[in-house]
Amino acid sequence: MPRVTVHRKAHFNAAHRLYRKDWSDDKNFEVFNKCSNQYFHGHNYELIVSLTGEISPETGYVYDLGVLRNLIKDEIEEAFDHKNLNIEVPEFKDLIPTAENISVVIYNKLRVHIPEDLDIKITLYETPRNFVSYSGE
Amino acid sequence: MPRVTVHRKAHFNAAHRLYRKDWSDDKNFEVFNKCSNQYFHGHNYELIVSLTGEISPETGYVYDLGVLRNLIKDEIEEAFDHKNLNIEVPEFKDLIPTAENISVVIYNKLRVHIPEDLDIKITLYETPRNFVSYSGE
Amino acid sequence: MPRVTVHRKAHFNAAHRLYRKDWSDDKNFEVFNKCSNQYFHGHNYELIVSLTGEISPETGYVYDLGVLRNLIKDEIEEAFDHKNLNIEVPEFKDLIPTAENISVVIYNKLRVHIPEDLDIKITLYETPRNFVSYSGE
Amino acid sequence: MPRVTVHRKAHFNAAHRLYRKDWSDDKNFEVFNKCSNQYFHGHNYELIVSLTGEISPETGYVYDLGVLRNLIKDEIEEAFDHKNLNIEVPEFKDLIPTAENISVVIYNKLRVHIPEDLDIKITLYETPRNFVSYSGE
Amino acid sequence: MPRVTVHRKAHFNAAHRLYRKDWSDDKNFEVFNKCSNQYFHGHNYELIVSLTGEISPETGYVYDLGVLRNLIKDEIEEAFDHKNLNIEVPEFKDLIPTAENISVVIYNKLRVHIPEDLDIKITLYETPRNFVSYSGE
Amino acid sequence: MPRVTVHRKAHFNAAHRLYRKDWSDDKNFEVFNKCSNQYFHGHNYELIVSLTGEISPETGYVYDLGVLRNLIKDEIEEAFDHKNLNIEVPEFKDLIPTAENISVVIYNKLRVHIPEDLDIKITLYETPRNFVSYSGE
Repeated sequence: MPRVTVHRKAHFNAAHRLYRKDWSDDKNFEVFNKCSNQYFHGHNYELIVSLTGEISPETGYVYDLGVLRNLIKDEIEEAFDHKNLNIEVPEFKDLIPTAENISVVIYNKLRVHIPEDLDIKITLYETPRNFVSYSGE
Repeated sequence: MPRVTVHRKAHFNAAHRLYRKDWSDDKNFEVFNKCSNQYFHGHNYELIVSLTGEISPETGYVYDLGVLRNLIKDEIEEAFDHKNLNIEVPEFKDLIPTAENISVVIYNKLRVHIPEDLDIKITLYETPRNFVSYSGE
Repeated sequence: MPRVTVHRKAHFNAAHRLYRKDWSDDKNFEVFNKCSNQYFHGHNYELIVSLTGEISPETGYVYDLGVLRNLIKDEIEEAFDHKNLNIEVPEFKDLIPTAENISVVIYNKLRVHIPEDLDIKITLYETPRNFVSYSGE
Repeated sequence: MPRVTVHRKAHFNAAHRLYRKDWSDDKNFEVFNKCSNQYFHGHNYELIVSLTGEISPETGYVYDLGVLRNLIKDEIEEAFDHKNLNIEVPEFKDLIPTAENISVVIYNKLRVHIPEDLDIKITLYETPRNFVSYSGE
Repeated sequence: MPRVTVHRKAHFNAAHRLYRKDWSDDKNFEVFNKCSNQYFHGHNYELIVSLTGEISPETGYVYDLGVLRNLIKDEIEEAFDHKNLNIEVPEFKDLIPTAENISVVIYNKLRVHIPEDLDIKITLYETPRNFVSYSGE
Repeated sequence: MPRVTVHRKAHFNAAHRLYRKDWSDDKNFEVFNKCSNQYFHGHNYELIVSLTGEISPETGYVYDLGVLRNLIKDEIEEAFDHKNLNIEVPEFKDLIPTAENISVVIYNKLRVHIPEDLDIKITLYETPRNFVSYSGE
């Protein structure tokens, strides 16, 4: 059967700051500039989850996008939406919530729920002009 | 010469339903939910056709995008636009018109018209949040 | 208090055809062209509902957009999404489902649920290039 | 001379929460739901500033959009970008930073810098699906 | 009958420069900055033409958008697309091709072809961040 | 460390024509059609620069997108924005400024400034419907 990639777009809003506890405020500002603001700033994150695999001859689906929508809602939106990533999301207790790291965390959270024969790719827009993608490599 | 991918975006509107004749209505609804509605629903499909190959030193083109626009118009828009995919498009007589299957049909319809040394990739948006891509694998 | 307009964007997919029962098929095709196709075609309708009124000094809201989202879901998406407008939506039994008429129907369906001191405007995209707007005039 | 509206789009990211100090946490949650999260959340705000006036016969401009870009940068982006609206922006010390109120604050901040014979309209996207507009009425 | 606005989006690419023959090059640069570049620069102009009038009870249309698409093609795209506005478009022989002036020229070119009982509004994007609108006032 | 791709979107406007000096005007028109117009036309080019590499455990960045933004500004926008590509950009003295060739020139201009262990991909939109991508192959 043909191998096709199916994509589902989702959305969450969150506050964050880029900051290392083991650096001084000056060092944090030098590296992360205004993104290190102690009072936080925030983003509308646009998320695309892409799954690659063979079309099922029974349903014509690679993966039911309604199921994927609900999985993203339960695993990602519930955990991240309207949250402060640094304070309220355990994965970022000791990990700087850059878009790069967020995309890896999202990948890992979804990987355990998606059949192994499907490849996963995460694309995450932090702003309309800055975005990242990660495929588990 | 450098290998570059050129992309052309197109558009068609169509009605469809997801439905297997050999399943009961209940089974169809269980699997395809409201997408199985017997009276059909429809979409504005956004299509991106991508061709990868070497730049021609003579023209600076990989493939003339005006020619590609006309090819998409003749082969895809003429066949699919303002049509009922299940009833009026022969390729879906015994094939469920999921976005996955539509992308494979489009790939196959274009493949015979595009020089063999060019790779083809199809990206098809069924809605702004649900889309698929297929590269002939 | 300042008068502000709040806007909420929503989405539904539907099938339709433009067709008058009291005209011949030829006359329908002459006026509505391929939009009169007897087997229907369809669209991803993008809907923007805009409400204008004074900011509440208590909440800083003109109207709670979460409430508006649910109202659009209950009154419009439930009635139109994944439906055949001609066959399954009673308002179009004797009314051609052009984008113009759909926008008026949506306005009227929402008007009874929105406080009278708020003005309503409907914007409805039938395709990314064709859209309409209606303010109850 | 013809009266034309010129529009300039800009962007800022900020954290906020919807919260009244004189209400209990429960009351805040009841009214503002997850938007009242004590640890804040955030948005990519997209801002459109629109000025309406006569075309200058000398320059063909209503207002130089390069000047408007810099004015938005100095007055709005400097004040709001990568900031916590509740804590760091004085206008919201006693004003809930709803999109409605933010649009009024932006209008007032720009009004004093724009010639009086030009009308101003503010459009502010809090998310791609929720936005507001204000014209000083 | 309800008054509705119908909108049609179109597109053309053109070169231009902002420049007055009766000013020195220095004066032109002072006012128009890099937009005065003697070798021209260019844009993808996105055009929205909006017509407001009563819905026809016969067709459910305010104005057939297929007819409007062809009118825009014949009157605007033919005249402007892939052209140098300063050199090849007679209306700009003595008129600076700012977005403001282009929108007025488009309005006037279409006004003579549109029934008098329909209001016209022109929206013209020079870039995704700079745009203008004109309603004949 | 995980390998992630970071993307930065930028923008420039330019005039160009597709034209070979060693061909007759007729031959140029035959191949390049209205794109060969001797008086030039122009585009709003949207540029996406993508860099792939390992996340730095120190900063959580693959590459600082603020640094990338400035690099694009200095190397690409300064050279191309509001310019006539054929006349004012030396790389196109003997190279037809098709989107394909522009993407290769941009790749080469950036390659020397980006660390060798990062892969680069260029995506260049000439119009919203025509775009190209190049990865140095």
